[in-house]
Amino acid sequence: MAPKLGILAGSGELPLRLVDACRAIDRPVFVLALEGAANPADYAGIPHASVRLGAGAEGLRLLRENGVEELVMAGPVRRPTLAALRPDWRAAKMLARIGLRALGDDGFLSAIIKEFELEGFHVVGVHDLLGSLLAPEGPLGKIAPDTQAEADIERGLEVAHALGAVDVGQAVVVQQGIVLGLEAAEGTDALIERAGRLQGEGAGGVLVKAVKPGQERRADLPTVGVATVQACARAGLRGIAVEAGMALVIDRPAVATAADDAGLFVAGIKRS
Amino acid sequence: MAPKLGILAGSGELPLRLVDACRAIDRPVFVLALEGAANPADYAGIPHASVRLGAGAEGLRLLRENGVEELVMAGPVRRPTLAALRPDWRAAKMLARIGLRALGDDGFLSAIIKEFELEGFHVVGVHDLLGSLLAPEGPLGKIAPDTQAEADIERGLEVAHALGAVDVGQAVVVQQGIVLGLEAAEGTDALIERAGRLQGEGAGGVLVKAVKPGQERRADLPTVGVATVQACARAGLRGIAVEAGMALVIDRPAVATAADDAGLFVAGIKRS
Repeated sequence: MAPKLGILAGSGELPLRLVDACRAIDRPVFVLALEGAANPADYAGIPHASVRLGAGAEGLRLLRENGVEELVMAGPVRRPTLAALRPDWRAAKMLARIGLRALGDDGFLSAIIKEFELEGFHVVGVHDLLGSLLAPEGPLGKIAPDTQAEADIERGLEVAHALGAVDVGQAVVVQQGIVLGLEAAEGTDALIERAGRLQGEGAGGVLVKAVKPGQERRADLPTVGVATVQACARAGLRGIAVEAGMALVIDRPAVATAADDAGLFVAGIKRS
Repeated sequence: MAPKLGILAGSGELPLRLVDACRAIDRPVFVLALEGAANPADYAGIPHASVRLGAGAEGLRLLRENGVEELVMAGPVRRPTLAALRPDWRAAKMLARIGLRALGDDGFLSAIIKEFELEGFHVVGVHDLLGSLLAPEGPLGKIAPDTQAEADIERGLEVAHALGAVDVGQAVVVQQGIVLGLEAAEGTDALIERAGRLQGEGAGGVLVKAVKPGQERRADLPTVGVATVQACARAGLRGIAVEAGMALVIDRPAVATAADDAGLFVAGIKRS
């Protein structure tokens, strides 16, 4: 039997998918649900505990008491303000070393990963455990981007990489070359809804999600699921693009079906 | 008497301030109000006409018929989709030469400025006419940024310049190092409102507006007015920073008073 997997659970359905995948291969899990991101009720019946992000000592104790040696982070976690973090002595020790001010989301998660490694945990990425979730190249469903959409995707990737280089959000919506919206702390769903309202006449907008240049891939890879497709459909966007091999697609067949049903494309773009 | 000034009016109060300034020195004006950006009703009693952005031939004819030789663009104008632009033959000629797909807002406005120059107009910037509107260095009111705010301003400028390098919005809101929001097509007021709602515990966010690296300064310099201060106050932000000499402050004494009344800082930062 594989050793127990510790899952640091952020928001969204990805941590639950990991639990399912482990159950399918009889791998035991222990979920540490991060307060403010994960919903502990989702983990009823699964070995788990809730912990504040700032409660570093308690988090480490819970993982050790539950026999965790291998650890994965799954689901987005926003960097809190220092006041909201309320760091305990262990988290304060980490902050004293790395500082907090200059960190973006990825910098914050990378720092946490390094901290766990210093404590002797083996930290893996979701893609190491579930490589089949990585977005393939090309359209997932029956619809492919047309020439205008391809140009919008290219512009979206350019802007997303510029944003990522300063460690801000992963998502951009572009319509006919016009950048309708950029993701920061509001999250992708709010971005999609807003950008939908800002669309001008003609062919609709495209959601582009990209990893940050040099991003710690074990932390919060861009993720697309059925809910993302449905949100884009509601907003009147025409498609979703991610970088092939650099984003996670949760339940690929269901995403493809949802895209076909809504008349949207979901495409993996080869990273140039 | 100075020659007649043509004012290509976008949104906001800046074009009206130019009209006032010209009136004060008896300089005649002709306002070309851009549909979808300027409100023609604002120009009742002032020589003006309304024109669609895509009606290039009509715009040029109106300017010439009204004896305009010197021209200024004032107030933001968003790049429309091609479908919404509905270019006439003259605008289509320009688009055929420069393309539209890859243009951001500044690229679009720069292209229009170049086009007017090719047609023989002398295009000046608002700051050439009203240099006193340029933001000075230091706080405008009684309140100055504290250490945390200074760090947030620095982070905001870093992110704004990264965004500007790919010709997207000018404004960013940062709280305690966390980028709460980025401006794209929604405009600064919507950004301020959204970022206010996303604030975490502790010292509030700071609005940072910056020019794009290499921006055509005759097009849409970042602008701050009393309305900006009031919007930030409503949203619970703690201050506004612009680059000294690279942004316009409309009615500096009123902005300083509004900032003091609301307990906010408005500061011009020396560009490093």
